[in-house]
Amino acid sequence: MTPFLDLPADSGFGLHNLPYGVFSTRAEPPRCGVRIGDHVVDLAVLESHGVVGVAGAGRQPVFNAGSLNRFMALGPDTWHAVRSHLQELLSVEGSPALRESETLRQRAIVPLADVTMHLPAEIGDYTDFYSSRQHATNVGSMFRDPDNALLPNWLHLPVGYHGRASSVVVSGTDVTRPSGQQKPDDDAPPVFGPSKLLDMELELGFFVGPGNALGEPIPMAQAGRHIFGFVLVNDWSARDIQKWEYVPLGPFLGKSFATSISPWVVPAAALAPFRVEGEAQDETAGNPEPLPYLRQAEPRALDLDLAVALETEAMREAGTPPEVVARSNATNLYWSPEQQLVHHTVNGCNARPGDLMASGTISGEAPGSYGSFLELSWRGTRPLDLPGGETRTFLRDGDRVVISGEAVRDGRRVSLGEVSGTIRPTAS
Amino acid sequence: MTPFLDLPADSGFGLHNLPYGVFSTRAEPPRCGVRIGDHVVDLAVLESHGVVGVAGAGRQPVFNAGSLNRFMALGPDTWHAVRSHLQELLSVEGSPALRESETLRQRAIVPLADVTMHLPAEIGDYTDFYSSRQHATNVGSMFRDPDNALLPNWLHLPVGYHGRASSVVVSGTDVTRPSGQQKPDDDAPPVFGPSKLLDMELELGFFVGPGNALGEPIPMAQAGRHIFGFVLVNDWSARDIQKWEYVPLGPFLGKSFATSISPWVVPAAALAPFRVEGEAQDETAGNPEPLPYLRQAEPRALDLDLAVALETEAMREAGTPPEVVARSNATNLYWSPEQQLVHHTVNGCNARPGDLMASGTISGEAPGSYGSFLELSWRGTRPLDLPGGETRTFLRDGDRVVISGEAVRDGRRVSLGEVSGTIRPTAS
Repeated sequence: MTPFLDLPADSGFGLHNLPYGVFSTRAEPPRCGVRIGDHVVDLAVLESHGVVGVAGAGRQPVFNAGSLNRFMALGPDTWHAVRSHLQELLSVEGSPALRESETLRQRAIVPLADVTMHLPAEIGDYTDFYSSRQHATNVGSMFRDPDNALLPNWLHLPVGYHGRASSVVVSGTDVTRPSGQQKPDDDAPPVFGPSKLLDMELELGFFVGPGNALGEPIPMAQAGRHIFGFVLVNDWSARDIQKWEYVPLGPFLGKSFATSISPWVVPAAALAPFRVEGEAQDETAGNPEPLPYLRQAEPRALDLDLAVALETEAMREAGTPPEVVARSNATNLYWSPEQQLVHHTVNGCNARPGDLMASGTISGEAPGSYGSFLELSWRGTRPLDLPGGETRTFLRDGDRVVISGEAVRDGRRVSLGEVSGTIRPTAS
Repeated sequence: MTPFLDLPADSGFGLHNLPYGVFSTRAEPPRCGVRIGDHVVDLAVLESHGVVGVAGAGRQPVFNAGSLNRFMALGPDTWHAVRSHLQELLSVEGSPALRESETLRQRAIVPLADVTMHLPAEIGDYTDFYSSRQHATNVGSMFRDPDNALLPNWLHLPVGYHGRASSVVVSGTDVTRPSGQQKPDDDAPPVFGPSKLLDMELELGFFVGPGNALGEPIPMAQAGRHIFGFVLVNDWSARDIQKWEYVPLGPFLGKSFATSISPWVVPAAALAPFRVEGEAQDETAGNPEPLPYLRQAEPRALDLDLAVALETEAMREAGTPPEVVARSNATNLYWSPEQQLVHHTVNGCNARPGDLMASGTISGEAPGSYGSFLELSWRGTRPLDLPGGETRTFLRDGDRVVISGEAVRDGRRVSLGEVSGTIRPTAS
């Protein structure tokens, strides 16, 4: 298949990707669209013209909505039908309904530069896991004991916690440095003020499609049918606030001030060709075999290149492009999205369409592959060198963090785009 | 003021209470109502007849909705105006608009026995605190160290964590016993199965009214204006699942299978007369003074009697009424609702109308005032005696837990009603 629209060379947003998002223009309120190259195809327009129809959706529009929740709820058979149809509509070989209608093309195809992106879904609940072994090991080594870095439960279940849904924001949203209680001096009372140890976390998230009823777990055999697609996640973290508050109930205000996600949700189907085996979860690799409900036959891991780049205010003024400070890969996740979802619901907890579940920081074994400044600077002891002679341990006001992700294999390139955010000073 | 409707003697649902809820009947879908005695007044009907109007609400109905979120968002001036107007409409002395209209009374007043109650709000985020000193002390004594039961942060900030919003259910909803990983034997691998240590937690929750923008904390002076009203909360807990999973990120599947709340939201104004000082947060009581952002001038505590009752299947069959197993009081909370809300937003985290925040288990100093079976049975070592010769450490299938709450002072009685739930066996 060849797209009929002009795409940049090596675009990761070709017909094999077709991610969904929610956009607005000067003229139109938020609605659902699909990205191809540097164009956005307005699905509300295609729907209203009867060019894209969704079986089983009833008379309510699916795409003329400010979120993808309705589409997410319809499940993989519908997703597959719409995706195939869009590939037809957008290729030179397929249906002429859009390609050969000047009027429809004018109305439905919008330059990416002219749109404002919004959160792709109304997120009912946001859950953050802790699924990278190296990240858990690094954190355990720094804060507990290098010889027993992984806690006893870590290899038996995907550890996770409930995050804050209200403060999930779309890429490009500024992040205000949080204030809060910290205890820098063990022998003195806590103090209040702006976080001095502001950090980011490189994560991969997925959106839940159809949910499950309360009390009815999703079994592993069905898990894939409940996963709509993937986004990049930056789980901003204030390490000083987190450290003082987190016992015994876990992270709270050290995280809840903002979580940023990329705007384009890459369909699970688009990433299926990039599934790989991942680390064996059995004695051949020295790991305990998970309990039966967590065992997964198909390849668990995703071969997805990830990068973290930093642009300081000085770099921006000097015209220096963002500097890549870490390169990782989603194969560094021990627990898969399916295992996360199955574990999350095994107690009967109900997931709903639009729920967001994130992987936890994705760190590899090499220091340059760590997914947070906490690890990259090893708790502030190893400053990172930046262009122009600056250094960083944690984030300063004006710093912009850009996380990007792309899967490449056999000439196929699927991009997750990027999630970025700039640190603003604490509100006075 | 005297209500024009007949009320049971000593009703806690008189004109001083007037809690809001969402109800449906056989004929009508969910809408907002207010309870007086054993009657429900249909606010959607009063609104559509122009008898109750909400200034500033625009043309969208406020009460003809399946949740109270719109009303919650309007803030205390509107709440006060509506409440005063309802007291007028429902009293023998006040406005005759409802009292003297046979037609309107027929349409707007429904017997409580004829309604089905629903969740009062769409809950965007649910947060659970840990604000009872005795509860934190009991748990710390059992699981860590009796001599250092409170962790160092506890007296400096209201410890809390994000709960699961999707599984908050209204009183009367059955609770399915959760399955999950447990590690009963320290020297053996974890096992999977139904929880054997199923528990409840007696809590008091509040709903957020107007929210705050991301990055803009709610200061203490404004906190009261953001608190709409109160409900009883049962934070069901599976202690065996919780124990194995909770390090280092906090409770997850041990809690997320269900949280039950009472259906009637008692306005903050109805509980204002029951505010009392509470334990001093300064050196006069041997406590550290909180950091300035958490200091509260007005009385922090609520004098609200609370009770936990249990009805086993055998008791139900024998016609034995539920047996009270614990009596507590909301004055056992060290941190107030205002302090919880201010702390929650001090990092810039945004609260939204309909967010639910719960107190954590409310335990007093006497063993009979503990708000969980974990504490009442002291980790299973002291079984509770029940009528008919049964005993309990943790909950069995068929057990029904009923939490009730009532404030009484100077002849004024305001009831929070009850929250109940019955344990059903694990789905096979």
